[in-house]
Amino acid sequence: MSQVESQDTQGSRYPAPSASGPLVVQKYGGTSVGSPERILAVAQRIAHCREQTRGLVVVVSAMGHTTDELIDLAQKVSQNPPRREMDMLLSTGERISMALLSMALSDLGVPAISFTGSQSGIITDGSHRRARIKRILGDRIREAVEAGKVAIVAGFQGVSEQKEITTLGRGGSDTTAVALAAALDADVCEIYTDVDGVFSADPRKVSGAKHLTSLSHDLMVELASRGAGVLHPRSVEVAKKYEVKLVVRNSLRALDSLESAAKGTEIVTRSEAQVPLRKGDSMEEFQVTGVTSDSGKFLIHAELERPGSSAAVWDSAAKAGLSVVAPLIAYPHLYFFADRESLGEWKKSLDRLVSEGFLKKFQLLDDQVPVSVVGDRFSQDGAALARIVEILAQCGTSVTIASGSALAVTVAVPLSRIEDAVRELHRQFLESSAS
Amino acid sequence: MSQVESQDTQGSRYPAPSASGPLVVQKYGGTSVGSPERILAVAQRIAHCREQTRGLVVVVSAMGHTTDELIDLAQKVSQNPPRREMDMLLSTGERISMALLSMALSDLGVPAISFTGSQSGIITDGSHRRARIKRILGDRIREAVEAGKVAIVAGFQGVSEQKEITTLGRGGSDTTAVALAAALDADVCEIYTDVDGVFSADPRKVSGAKHLTSLSHDLMVELASRGAGVLHPRSVEVAKKYEVKLVVRNSLRALDSLESAAKGTEIVTRSEAQVPLRKGDSMEEFQVTGVTSDSGKFLIHAELERPGSSAAVWDSAAKAGLSVVAPLIAYPHLYFFADRESLGEWKKSLDRLVSEGFLKKFQLLDDQVPVSVVGDRFSQDGAALARIVEILAQCGTSVTIASGSALAVTVAVPLSRIEDAVRELHRQFLESSAS
Repeated sequence: MSQVESQDTQGSRYPAPSASGPLVVQKYGGTSVGSPERILAVAQRIAHCREQTRGLVVVVSAMGHTTDELIDLAQKVSQNPPRREMDMLLSTGERISMALLSMALSDLGVPAISFTGSQSGIITDGSHRRARIKRILGDRIREAVEAGKVAIVAGFQGVSEQKEITTLGRGGSDTTAVALAAALDADVCEIYTDVDGVFSADPRKVSGAKHLTSLSHDLMVELASRGAGVLHPRSVEVAKKYEVKLVVRNSLRALDSLESAAKGTEIVTRSEAQVPLRKGDSMEEFQVTGVTSDSGKFLIHAELERPGSSAAVWDSAAKAGLSVVAPLIAYPHLYFFADRESLGEWKKSLDRLVSEGFLKKFQLLDDQVPVSVVGDRFSQDGAALARIVEILAQCGTSVTIASGSALAVTVAVPLSRIEDAVRELHRQFLESSAS
Repeated sequence: MSQVESQDTQGSRYPAPSASGPLVVQKYGGTSVGSPERILAVAQRIAHCREQTRGLVVVVSAMGHTTDELIDLAQKVSQNPPRREMDMLLSTGERISMALLSMALSDLGVPAISFTGSQSGIITDGSHRRARIKRILGDRIREAVEAGKVAIVAGFQGVSEQKEITTLGRGGSDTTAVALAAALDADVCEIYTDVDGVFSADPRKVSGAKHLTSLSHDLMVELASRGAGVLHPRSVEVAKKYEVKLVVRNSLRALDSLESAAKGTEIVTRSEAQVPLRKGDSMEEFQVTGVTSDSGKFLIHAELERPGSSAAVWDSAAKAGLSVVAPLIAYPHLYFFADRESLGEWKKSLDRLVSEGFLKKFQLLDDQVPVSVVGDRFSQDGAALARIVEILAQCGTSVTIASGSALAVTVAVPLSRIEDAVRELHRQFLESSAS
């Protein structure tokens, strides 16, 4: 051990990182760092984990509801806060968490150093409040890790080529963590949250929901973009592209918990996903992995003035960086699911498209929510589609808007019916005696 | 070498298989075994390849247009041939090829033995003319391979649990080969055909089309189900499920060809697919792999009597084993693409659904063909959708029917416009200076 390193770790109650261990990126969400007590608990966990790694990089979100409080503050001082200044303001949330966590680690004798998105070299495009990561330099993080320090990185933020501070929008901190893991070529990216991982349906609503121990990136992209909720689809897309192994774990569980759920869910390439082929499975039959609903999304219906007008709608979504789920055009009708939190933004933008002559009219069907069945081989023949429509009919839901791909079928279901719909689809596809 | 083996290989001009080599399944399509000369050429190729393997299993299709000729014969002797008897008849086509190929190998001094689908233990469901493979026993094939023989297996056929001979329908021989490779745990499944592999668009129509040397199973499923043509999506789905490495090669190229196209296209898991991340790629942007059209498919539009009526339509597709591509429901309208060769079957079935009160009316829009853009991260935001609609508008095609998923966007395009549409989409997405 060199002179410098031994000074850095002087007084540490924890051994130095293990040279043969993995390089790990961990991400702790807002709940996990929601109070001073929780930050101390996270510090303990980091101190413990560090012993088994050859390097540990930790990405943090802002504490609890900090971001909402900052937005609230901004609205109290300005009618229309400039987006650039909002990013200056919002980016402080993660900086508070990272500094506090670094202090807590220091107290435990664990050498740690915090970095802003900018210091980490997280280069984004220039879209304030919804920037996309272009690339990550990461030099200072690499140096810190090589010097035996835990690098604490502010999630959700970056810097544009014009040296402006940007924030990443929805799913930002998860995406920071995964992109960092890709850039650093880490062995694993662990996402700590307040649930036990990914389930075949929401366990709070479906009693038979099964904990999934292992899942492929592509199916997780479908689950995440259709409401599975544990991870943002953006981050899973990056994990898929760079083949980053993700592990979702509950930070509120004790470190030494022996329950299998405490192991969380690993999201890996298809080859690595240990999906047991079920006995009696026919080689060619379709297979269901999970059933989701997403009450955070709602249905938009627009009537196009001309066929080409749909480009104006998609262009609005592109400019606003808004995701478009299960889009379909049956001229003159256009349907898709959008994020409920951008309902106001959509209303403004669609009003404008009506006045500009692209749309005849539109409806924001905020009572209609996407319910999806995710799995494999759905376009093999009509069997999967027929069963989905039949099951929904049995529980009183008519399929009026639907679209399907090889990996998922998505249907619009009234808000009041989604729990029944999800429960029944799950029961018939995943709780039958055959499974 | 045991007594038995040395007798078997007596007089062989070719060395015995190499114990350290891979276990290989090869499949030769109808064109590859289309004449006695071609069968002899295939035999030479097999003799040559065998030296580098520890075991070789060869799946063959019927010669050239044999199957069509047999169907023609049947129609000359019967108004309505029973499906069971059709399978008895059709299954002879592959048996002719396999016997001929085995004889040709024998002449070359290569020990070979042919097996019917039934002898190979290819167990299917009982749907004559469109059976699905349930599982493969493969005991006799394993024994033959262990005895140093090339096992020649009839593609496209199997046997039901009721001991009836079945045929597998469209994509049958490819599926036989892939399912065998999965069951035997082969190292690779090589599909020999009359093209050089998979391209980013049809090279006969798009001059800038790029040869893809490596591709992931999931993107190949999308390309195949949307018209890429080289492989049937069914077989790729099985390859994806069991992680079978596929290699598509041109059997008409000389064995010693040095051109890179002669290496064909390998279809593997995402981890293995050597897709170079393009320099300057942004970490989160969408990415296009290929552009396809499929004039073998056409658009069906039905007007539903009640919302639940769509189940009756999908059920027809399931009962007939017909694939349903890019289905969408915008009540009362239902749209999807179906195989052109089943147009008559669809007409009958939809007529019945009208008379039974499920549908108000329907249209077989046989002038409307699917054009698709396949790639990654399409639902990230509206950017991919906006560009597709704009590019199509530039070349005079209005998007009136469309649906999208994370991996593909499919649009209905009039038959007369598809070449322009594909060419322009390919040019703008895949031939730009950025790529």
